[in-house]
Amino acid sequence: MARTLIIDTIKKVGETIKVAGWVQTVRSHGKITFVDLVDRSGTLQAVIEGDCDLKPFDVVEFEGLAKERPEKLANPNISTGFVELEAQEATILSKAQELPIDMGAKDLELHLPTLLDHRSLTLRHPKIKAIFKVQEALMEGFRKAAKEMDCTEVFVPTISASATEGGAELFRFPYFGNVAYLVQSPQLYKQMMVGAFERVYLTSHIYRAEPSVTTRHLVESIQLDFEIGFIEKFEEVLDALEVSYSILVGYAQDMCAEELKLLGVEPSLVSAKVPRLKMREAQEIVFERTGVDHRNEMDLMPEDEKEISAWAKEEHNSDLVTITHFPTKKRAFYSMPDPDDPEYTLSFDLLFKGLEVASGAQRIHNYDKLVETIESRGMDPENFEMYLQAFRYGMPPHGGFSFGLERTTMKLLNLQNIREASLYPRDMERVDFSFSKKGK
Amino acid sequence: MARTLIIDTIKKVGETIKVAGWVQTVRSHGKITFVDLVDRSGTLQAVIEGDCDLKPFDVVEFEGLAKERPEKLANPNISTGFVELEAQEATILSKAQELPIDMGAKDLELHLPTLLDHRSLTLRHPKIKAIFKVQEALMEGFRKAAKEMDCTEVFVPTISASATEGGAELFRFPYFGNVAYLVQSPQLYKQMMVGAFERVYLTSHIYRAEPSVTTRHLVESIQLDFEIGFIEKFEEVLDALEVSYSILVGYAQDMCAEELKLLGVEPSLVSAKVPRLKMREAQEIVFERTGVDHRNEMDLMPEDEKEISAWAKEEHNSDLVTITHFPTKKRAFYSMPDPDDPEYTLSFDLLFKGLEVASGAQRIHNYDKLVETIESRGMDPENFEMYLQAFRYGMPPHGGFSFGLERTTMKLLNLQNIREASLYPRDMERVDFSFSKKGK
Repeated sequence: MARTLIIDTIKKVGETIKVAGWVQTVRSHGKITFVDLVDRSGTLQAVIEGDCDLKPFDVVEFEGLAKERPEKLANPNISTGFVELEAQEATILSKAQELPIDMGAKDLELHLPTLLDHRSLTLRHPKIKAIFKVQEALMEGFRKAAKEMDCTEVFVPTISASATEGGAELFRFPYFGNVAYLVQSPQLYKQMMVGAFERVYLTSHIYRAEPSVTTRHLVESIQLDFEIGFIEKFEEVLDALEVSYSILVGYAQDMCAEELKLLGVEPSLVSAKVPRLKMREAQEIVFERTGVDHRNEMDLMPEDEKEISAWAKEEHNSDLVTITHFPTKKRAFYSMPDPDDPEYTLSFDLLFKGLEVASGAQRIHNYDKLVETIESRGMDPENFEMYLQAFRYGMPPHGGFSFGLERTTMKLLNLQNIREASLYPRDMERVDFSFSKKGK
Repeated sequence: MARTLIIDTIKKVGETIKVAGWVQTVRSHGKITFVDLVDRSGTLQAVIEGDCDLKPFDVVEFEGLAKERPEKLANPNISTGFVELEAQEATILSKAQELPIDMGAKDLELHLPTLLDHRSLTLRHPKIKAIFKVQEALMEGFRKAAKEMDCTEVFVPTISASATEGGAELFRFPYFGNVAYLVQSPQLYKQMMVGAFERVYLTSHIYRAEPSVTTRHLVESIQLDFEIGFIEKFEEVLDALEVSYSILVGYAQDMCAEELKLLGVEPSLVSAKVPRLKMREAQEIVFERTGVDHRNEMDLMPEDEKEISAWAKEEHNSDLVTITHFPTKKRAFYSMPDPDDPEYTLSFDLLFKGLEVASGAQRIHNYDKLVETIESRGMDPENFEMYLQAFRYGMPPHGGFSFGLERTTMKLLNLQNIREASLYPRDMERVDFSFSKKGK
């Protein structure tokens, strides 16, 4: 007999069917036992005569009669709550050992290290699974936005020959008698692609070897990138940023309404109409609101990001706010200086509920200017030869940005730590398990 | 004035418009100059009065009148061949330096190292661009197949804590006072995910530190993975393999008919009905056809793969052939031994025009059996703790497979070297440029 997915049992009342999944709960009432069975599509109550030897997370197959459940006993919260299976035959496909964690609890109230040490188990909890269904939808929303923007998807490497961009530290490794690095960003490659495809998007793993532990950084994370050629002005890049981010978040919220409800998360206020402030304006507002004077700082502090997001929410009913015009000295060499005030760049960050989730800029597209900028920063243009090649042979004005997948997941779902938004997070202390625990 | 994409000029005959793109060719006829302009959507002829100072790959904007082209002068090969632009104004957005390569040639007849040393330029050639448009479509086809199979997309790390699977060599690097590795495969992670999502798919970069240079291996490549839970028999995995591969290749062929035509490639004979042979049967057929006796070899040799593909084409009119039942000793520990003959596994390779493009198996899902197998291979189950955790708490019967994106691109387009199917290929000697050239 072919397996029926639990969600499809609704259509099979009165039929003998086979279902398969994981035992979620077992309630013995002496003469009969109730088993909640879960598969990828839903949850179903099975009724077994007498006692049975089933335990949570046993993998089983039940054959039996699909029946309508008496109305007063039905579970109106789930679509399969009006059906039950009168199980005539049970086959155990795989026995589970005793669980070290109460996976039946409504919330897994575990310390993060415990949660992660048991990740292959804990991610089966409905609320953890929901996080990653939302993450999947964010990625789909990203691709949807990319298609709407007529971008070509490109695939670029994560191994690099030189520590080209400087800045944060890089992982470095022996490479067939030479040395190679893991990229911090696919930035240079996506710009190179503009020379061929005009508008590109890509997904990349990026690596950060900085020896620091925060709630918002991962050593390995997933970055979603756009780069768009033939822009006529800076504002086009901002428009693309805000439209695409509102598409990807909006899509995930639409597709995952059930998951958001399960997680008790209110939908975020995300539209393509995002308030925009220059960094200096933002600092001024923070000063006015809090009296804290960061007006001479070269960047927004984390607490400024929180404050300016509070402002955007209060004044513009928006969970997003775009900050532009960061100081040239603080941004990467390829950022276009503002022609009206070259101390600042045509760059931006997007803040989502108090955290930077995206970053980008219009780029320098003139070859000579780019070489000059590289040299003025004490770097060697020879290390950028493949990149510069794209500019040597005609590069249109362009700009782009990137989103952090885990950060977006974290803020959308109000998670406290970015590690909760990564299936198997890597940090200074942990690769699956903490190194100290392994005694290494 | 807003930019009109070249493809849309067809609808704007009689209007004054602005187009932008790269100069492809310039033909001066004294009184007038013809310029072919290319953007992401197509090619357009612009007519300029008098001479002009344009060179190939200059980035320009033209304003002027869109006109119907006299029929006998039209280019019937492209949809915009019946339109031309009477350019009234030309603005140079970016000048190109003199090209080191004749990019106007119908084919770039360059040695591979030269092609790759100029990759940021050469990928602008229509025939090279076409390769990566096909690659994009293959990826879309993969996602389409995954959706049809009701798989959840998951995101797994590429940094690993131990050299778990052994076999081919791994890149190893210092990791905050410890040591980490780049994964050879997301295999273990995707299996772990089956415990939560039943059916998953993912895209991963994989790394191969083997010091060898071949035409079919890359150091960094892109792998497309499926893993499917609750299978009832091995053949379900084979069905999923063949159906999904025929979807992804079929989709790319449908979407990229123009690119295939440009590249002079006949569509491949790919359907979900793929001939299947056990490895020993395949060796027997090779022996019968060629007299070469590999019947005692533990694996197919590259020449056997070519021969058995020739057989599949002749006998079954198929460019695909599935080979099953490889020796247990030669396959990874997680492969399920055939219950009827445990010397062989329920494993398989998919051959496409003579090359292995996919590989997979039914997996061992019983925890005790898995631990026993790991130990019997001289490995330490402690190194597999996170993986084994998934099996300890109830894992359904499952199997899966992975496709190589570059190999599929290569075979579909009859490319001679896999490096042609990677935007920026990494190999022993090359990371963007060859190391020897850099004098490192």
